[in-house]
Amino acid sequence: MISVDAMGSDKGPAAVVAGLVDSGRADPDLSFILHGDQAQLAPLLAKAADVAQRVQIVHAERVVTMNDKPAQVLRSGAGTSMWSTIESVKQGQAKVAVSCGNTGALMALSMIRLRKLPGVNRPAIACFWPSRNPSGFNVMLDVGADIKADAADLVQYATMGAAYASVALNLENPRVGLLNVGTEEHKGRAELKEAHELLSQATNGFAYAGFVEGSDIPGTACDVIVTDGFTGNVALKTGEGTAKLISDFLRQEYSASLTAKIAAGLSMRILRRLQTRMDPRRVNGGVFLGLNGTVVKSHGSADATGVAAAIQLAARLARSGMNERLAERLAPSQSGEQDGAA
Amino acid sequence: MISVDAMGSDKGPAAVVAGLVDSGRADPDLSFILHGDQAQLAPLLAKAADVAQRVQIVHAERVVTMNDKPAQVLRSGAGTSMWSTIESVKQGQAKVAVSCGNTGALMALSMIRLRKLPGVNRPAIACFWPSRNPSGFNVMLDVGADIKADAADLVQYATMGAAYASVALNLENPRVGLLNVGTEEHKGRAELKEAHELLSQATNGFAYAGFVEGSDIPGTACDVIVTDGFTGNVALKTGEGTAKLISDFLRQEYSASLTAKIAAGLSMRILRRLQTRMDPRRVNGGVFLGLNGTVVKSHGSADATGVAAAIQLAARLARSGMNERLAERLAPSQSGEQDGAA
Repeated sequence: MISVDAMGSDKGPAAVVAGLVDSGRADPDLSFILHGDQAQLAPLLAKAADVAQRVQIVHAERVVTMNDKPAQVLRSGAGTSMWSTIESVKQGQAKVAVSCGNTGALMALSMIRLRKLPGVNRPAIACFWPSRNPSGFNVMLDVGADIKADAADLVQYATMGAAYASVALNLENPRVGLLNVGTEEHKGRAELKEAHELLSQATNGFAYAGFVEGSDIPGTACDVIVTDGFTGNVALKTGEGTAKLISDFLRQEYSASLTAKIAAGLSMRILRRLQTRMDPRRVNGGVFLGLNGTVVKSHGSADATGVAAAIQLAARLARSGMNERLAERLAPSQSGEQDGAA
Repeated sequence: MISVDAMGSDKGPAAVVAGLVDSGRADPDLSFILHGDQAQLAPLLAKAADVAQRVQIVHAERVVTMNDKPAQVLRSGAGTSMWSTIESVKQGQAKVAVSCGNTGALMALSMIRLRKLPGVNRPAIACFWPSRNPSGFNVMLDVGADIKADAADLVQYATMGAAYASVALNLENPRVGLLNVGTEEHKGRAELKEAHELLSQATNGFAYAGFVEGSDIPGTACDVIVTDGFTGNVALKTGEGTAKLISDFLRQEYSASLTAKIAAGLSMRILRRLQTRMDPRRVNGGVFLGLNGTVVKSHGSADATGVAAAIQLAARLARSGMNERLAERLAPSQSGEQDGAA
């Protein structure tokens, strides 16, 4: 059972319902709790009767907008579709939640309503990153849950990121790298050197690959990149910005002359394949880790394809029991015996 | 007069001399002090007699390698071509130095031999970044001189970066943005909020554009991006890594089938134009700011085109009197009257 926030997407509830229907058709075992305005959702679902019978609509009067401040949503967010979506996980009706809404509000609500897993200091947001590794993606965290992280937090991020990557990328013993400005041991801030020491001795469901640099984020040196939420957020947006710049430059060059336009016609399939490999809609499943329940944040501008990808990811995470395993590994009583037993 | 380190490039002294010759031919008013192994340099220069008469070779027995530790170079670097290159600036024979060598060693040597400008706490490395702005580039600093920066340092970076951008990008009143994880005032670390306050009141040769995000680094929101050397270094390498990933993916897709290869043939000119717009050889002029003299760091793997670009940049910086203006603006006695008078 997956709890889905139907509202809060830039593209409106139609895109979310279309994504839900796509994922429901691809996987007949999925069922959903859909939160939002009943009057809008019922007619949208009626067009897909086959999936609709696996969807339970929970009416929510109000919507969290992109401009709402997290603190404000915490105070008066009851009655919104986002609140209701998280509530289904809190009540145990669903194991995972999916929302396209306001990231800050979603994180704040998830933190307060679901609460941190025992032993977790800072939850984190993990994202996918296009890479040269066989799966086509790496995982990076934290990309913006918290602007700070000390050595112990970074070690927990390694455990969280590895558990996530093992399910989402189907890796047995993910290699974790610690983001720094150089790979030599003497480089970087004090908390990085300390985390490096701790990780060198850790065996909590991952293999430590040492320090990595920004150029390694899409590389093969590791599968999981661990960093604080400030650096991770800047890196994520810098990577996205660079990809967008190149794509815009390509578009300009391909429409600059007649020959260019002919070349563009012939290159159509290639450019579309490139876009798929780099596509933020495929990699939009930012995931909140370290809470009592998993929350998948989809891009605010995700279309049906993007929403379906986020729901499929959520389904895999729920079925794999990732969060239960993570809870065991991060539990305070377990910190002595870091053997990562499931 | 430009002081050039002939050694320390991955491609050997031939690439450096070729770049020097290119820049010397493009600009007949340039003259050079070239530091390195006389026995290797003399024959290379002999092939370009027209430029050779404007070159004074200063023999240096030894070379700083990419593996030498900065501390080691500081201790026993006298007699290397890099040391000699910086020494020409220290002695006032040249206003700027250009080197392809080991960045850490070059920075350490520059700091110790040239010393910081009065009033400067942390010097910084500034780089070019491909952008949507009319000049095609933005400036970012610090990208790795120091992993830390407090609010006052960030304000100095704004002054340094603006002075550099005004010459290198030919901008009258560069717009400076402060890199953060969001553009709202309440976001980010304490030192960023403090710097934001200070910059909002500053008029030291720039217009403050407020907080910017990673996605703005190649954007039009500002011309100069200010950040600490840790974040800047990660962002720079992430951007380079992303561009390299896309370029590799494109190459793979364009050789995947016969049709693709035909499309590639027709797209050759377009892809070459794209490469020029994104080219690290055009943007390789990392520049050390805040010292008594300017040092241009060229990529270790720069070819003749890259070296020539770095030398031309160095020439513009020397002729513009940028460093003298910067010294005035950063001088402790001037801090009260931040009017940026040249």
